[in-house]
Amino acid sequence: METFLEKAKASSAIAATLDGRTKSRVLTTMAERLEQATESILRANALDMQAAEENNLGSALKDRLYLDGKRVSAMAESLRQIAALREPVGRVLEGWRNEADLRIEKVSVPIGVIGVIYESRPNVTADVGALCFKSGNVAILKGGKEAEHSNRAIAEVLQSVLAEQGLPREIISLLPDSSREGVATLIRQDRYVDLIVPRGGEALIRYVAENATVPVVKHDKGLCHTYIHAEADPEMAATIAINAKCDRPGVCNAMETLLVDRAIAPEMLPRLYDLFKAAGTQLRADERALEFIEAALASEEDWDTEYLANILAVKVVDGIEEAIAHIRRHGSGHSEAIVTENYSAAERFLDEVDAACVYVNASTRFTDGGAFGFGAEVGISTNKLHARGPMGIDELTTYKYKIYGKGQIR
Amino acid sequence: METFLEKAKASSAIAATLDGRTKSRVLTTMAERLEQATESILRANALDMQAAEENNLGSALKDRLYLDGKRVSAMAESLRQIAALREPVGRVLEGWRNEADLRIEKVSVPIGVIGVIYESRPNVTADVGALCFKSGNVAILKGGKEAEHSNRAIAEVLQSVLAEQGLPREIISLLPDSSREGVATLIRQDRYVDLIVPRGGEALIRYVAENATVPVVKHDKGLCHTYIHAEADPEMAATIAINAKCDRPGVCNAMETLLVDRAIAPEMLPRLYDLFKAAGTQLRADERALEFIEAALASEEDWDTEYLANILAVKVVDGIEEAIAHIRRHGSGHSEAIVTENYSAAERFLDEVDAACVYVNASTRFTDGGAFGFGAEVGISTNKLHARGPMGIDELTTYKYKIYGKGQIR
Repeated sequence: METFLEKAKASSAIAATLDGRTKSRVLTTMAERLEQATESILRANALDMQAAEENNLGSALKDRLYLDGKRVSAMAESLRQIAALREPVGRVLEGWRNEADLRIEKVSVPIGVIGVIYESRPNVTADVGALCFKSGNVAILKGGKEAEHSNRAIAEVLQSVLAEQGLPREIISLLPDSSREGVATLIRQDRYVDLIVPRGGEALIRYVAENATVPVVKHDKGLCHTYIHAEADPEMAATIAINAKCDRPGVCNAMETLLVDRAIAPEMLPRLYDLFKAAGTQLRADERALEFIEAALASEEDWDTEYLANILAVKVVDGIEEAIAHIRRHGSGHSEAIVTENYSAAERFLDEVDAACVYVNASTRFTDGGAFGFGAEVGISTNKLHARGPMGIDELTTYKYKIYGKGQIR
Repeated sequence: METFLEKAKASSAIAATLDGRTKSRVLTTMAERLEQATESILRANALDMQAAEENNLGSALKDRLYLDGKRVSAMAESLRQIAALREPVGRVLEGWRNEADLRIEKVSVPIGVIGVIYESRPNVTADVGALCFKSGNVAILKGGKEAEHSNRAIAEVLQSVLAEQGLPREIISLLPDSSREGVATLIRQDRYVDLIVPRGGEALIRYVAENATVPVVKHDKGLCHTYIHAEADPEMAATIAINAKCDRPGVCNAMETLLVDRAIAPEMLPRLYDLFKAAGTQLRADERALEFIEAALASEEDWDTEYLANILAVKVVDGIEEAIAHIRRHGSGHSEAIVTENYSAAERFLDEVDAACVYVNASTRFTDGGAFGFGAEVGISTNKLHARGPMGIDELTTYKYKIYGKGQIR
C-alpha cells in the first residue's frame, strides 16, 4: 500500500503539468477503447450481476450495477464530453498589484491525489477517473464490492491508454486493498493523499469523517424542503412540489418535507392531495395538515428522515419564521426552496436559509452538476468548506499565488 | 461545554445576518472601549508577565506577550481597520443562467462557528475575534495559557460591547475549558463547529489534524527556499536572499534553505558569504558550496529544518530540475522563490513548484495578508483546500448558490 501511494503521489507531479491538448487526446482515446472493449466489460459485468443475484441484491441496486452496450457507449460519450470541457488548470481567478508593485495572480491548480469512495454504478469509475485526470489530479478509486469485476475491467482500459501514452498507470487506479482496512489506511495517509470524497451510505460517510486525517468532502444525505409561502402562485407551487418529490424520489435533491403556510393551506393541501395521490405518494402529515387531507400522522422522526422513496412529510407552518426555523433544525444543508410571489419573503429565505442551494420558485431537483451547466459532476457536496453543492471539474482544483517581482524586498 | 457550543451555534444565525453598517459600528465601539480599558488590560497583562517571569519564559516569548499603552492602541487601530474592510458577506462570486433559464448566483456567506487555537500574542484575541465578526462568523478563541489573563480582559471588553448592542456574547468568546481536554472536545464537535484554525507549534497542529472531525485549516511550518538560477541578476539575488533570511528570521515566510545554481555559485557564494557574515547568519552548506565559502557541513536533517533563527542551509544544485526536485522533497508548500532573468525558467518554476505562494524575483517575506493587501489576516494556511496561503477576511467565508426561478421543474 505504501509503495502504491508513493507512486500515486509521484505521478501527481506528472498529471499536474500535462497540457490541455494531451489530456483531451488521452480522454478521447479512452472513450474509443472503452467502446472497443465493450465485450470484455460486459463479461466482467455479468460476473457482478451473477453475484448480485446470488446475494439477493434489490432490483434498484441491480439496475444501477447493470451494463449493456448502450450504457458502455454512454460512458464513452461522457468521457468525450469531459475531454471537451474548458481547461480547469491555470485559470486566473484573481489578479492585482500590491503596494510594493508585486503582480499577484491567484491561479487554479490541481489538488493532487484524490481518493473517491463510491458504490454500485460502474460508470462512476470512468467518469470520476476522467474528471480527476482532466483537472490534473491523480485518482484513487474505491468502488463497491458488488461492482468489483466491472470496475476492474473499466480501470484496466483507462490504465492501458495511460501506459500507451507514456503516462504512469497510477494516474487513475483502483485502491489495491479494497477491504475496510484498505479504506482505513487510505483516509489517514495525509502525506500522500490530498482529498477524500466519500459518496454512499451515511455509515460510510460518518466513518470516513470521523477517522480521516486527509481532508474530506462529504456527499451526504439531502433532506430537502419546499416551503409554499402564503403568497405563492398555487398552480406553480403544485407543479414544483410534485416535481420535487415525484420526478425521482430516490435521489438526494428530491423533496422530503413539504412546508405549507397556514394562510394558503386550505387551498393548497386538498389540491396537492389529489396530485400526490395520483402519483402514488405516501403522505405523512402533522395534525394541522390533517384538517385538510387524509394521511398518516407524522412522528417527530419523520422530520429527520430522508425517505429516498415516494413518501412525503407534510407540515403546516405559521409563516416564514417557522418555516426557516424548521429547516434550520431539520435540513441537511443540501437544497431548500420557497415558492412565493412576495419579494421580501424570497429575499429573506435566500439570505437566512443555510444550505448549499437555496431556490425561489423552482424545483430542488436542479441541484446537479449537469443541470447547473458544469458539464459533469463528481457529486454534490454537503460540506461547507472547499466545495459546496454540485461539485464539477473546477471544484477538483485549488489555487496557488504566482507572484511576479522585479527584485522587491520587505 | 455542550450548552456553550449550542449557544455558539445558535448565535451564528444572528451573526450571519448582521448588516455591514451594524458590524462596523460594533467594531469601532470595541476599538474605543479597548482604549478606555487600557488600564485594566495592562493590569491583567502584568499578571501574565509575572507568571512568565516565574516560569522562565524566553525573552522572545515575553516580548510577544507584553502589552503597553501603545500596543493596546495598536490593537484598537487594527479593529478600526477591520471595520473599514469591504463587506465580505454577500459578494456575488459568479453568476449565470442555466439551460432551464434559472438565474444562478454563487454568493459568499459566513462559514458559521470558527474555533481558533493560538499562542502568546494577546492582540490575536482582538484581531481574530474582529475578523470572524466582520465576516459574520462566531469565534471560539483558545489562546495560550501564558496569556490567559490578558486574553480574558480583552474578550471581556469585546463581549460587553456585543451585549450592550443586544447581541449574544457568544459571538466572540473564549473556549470555557481551555485544557487539553477542552480542545479535544472542541475539535470533534462537528455538529456545532464548522472550522478549526490551529496556529502554533507542530505538535499542536499534528494533534488537531489527527483528531479533529471538524475541518481544519492548518497554519503549519514554512520551510521556504530561494533558488538563485544561473541567469539571475547577482545584485538582485543577493538583496533578495539577505532579505528573505535576515529581515525576520523567526517568521514562517523567512528563507530556510538557499539553492544556488552551479553555474553562478563561484560568483554568488563568496559575495553572499560576506553579506551573511555581516548579518550574523550562521551558515550550513553542502560539500559543493563549501568549495566557495566557509561554513558547517550541512546534514540531511538541515534540509528539513525550519530554523526560525538566523541560520541558513546552503546547497549548490545542477540546475532548475534539481532545484525543483529538492523543493518538492523538502518544501512545506508555503513560499518558494526563484531569482532569474530567464523567461522559461521563471515560467517553469511558477508552474511546477507546488506551494501556496511561488515568487519570481521577490523575497518570500511578502507572504502575508497585510503585504498581499488583504487588510488583516487570520494566518497563513499551509492547507491545500479551502484557504491556501495568506488567509484574510474573504477566506473566512464560504459560498452558497442562490437560484432564482419562475416555476421551473425538471
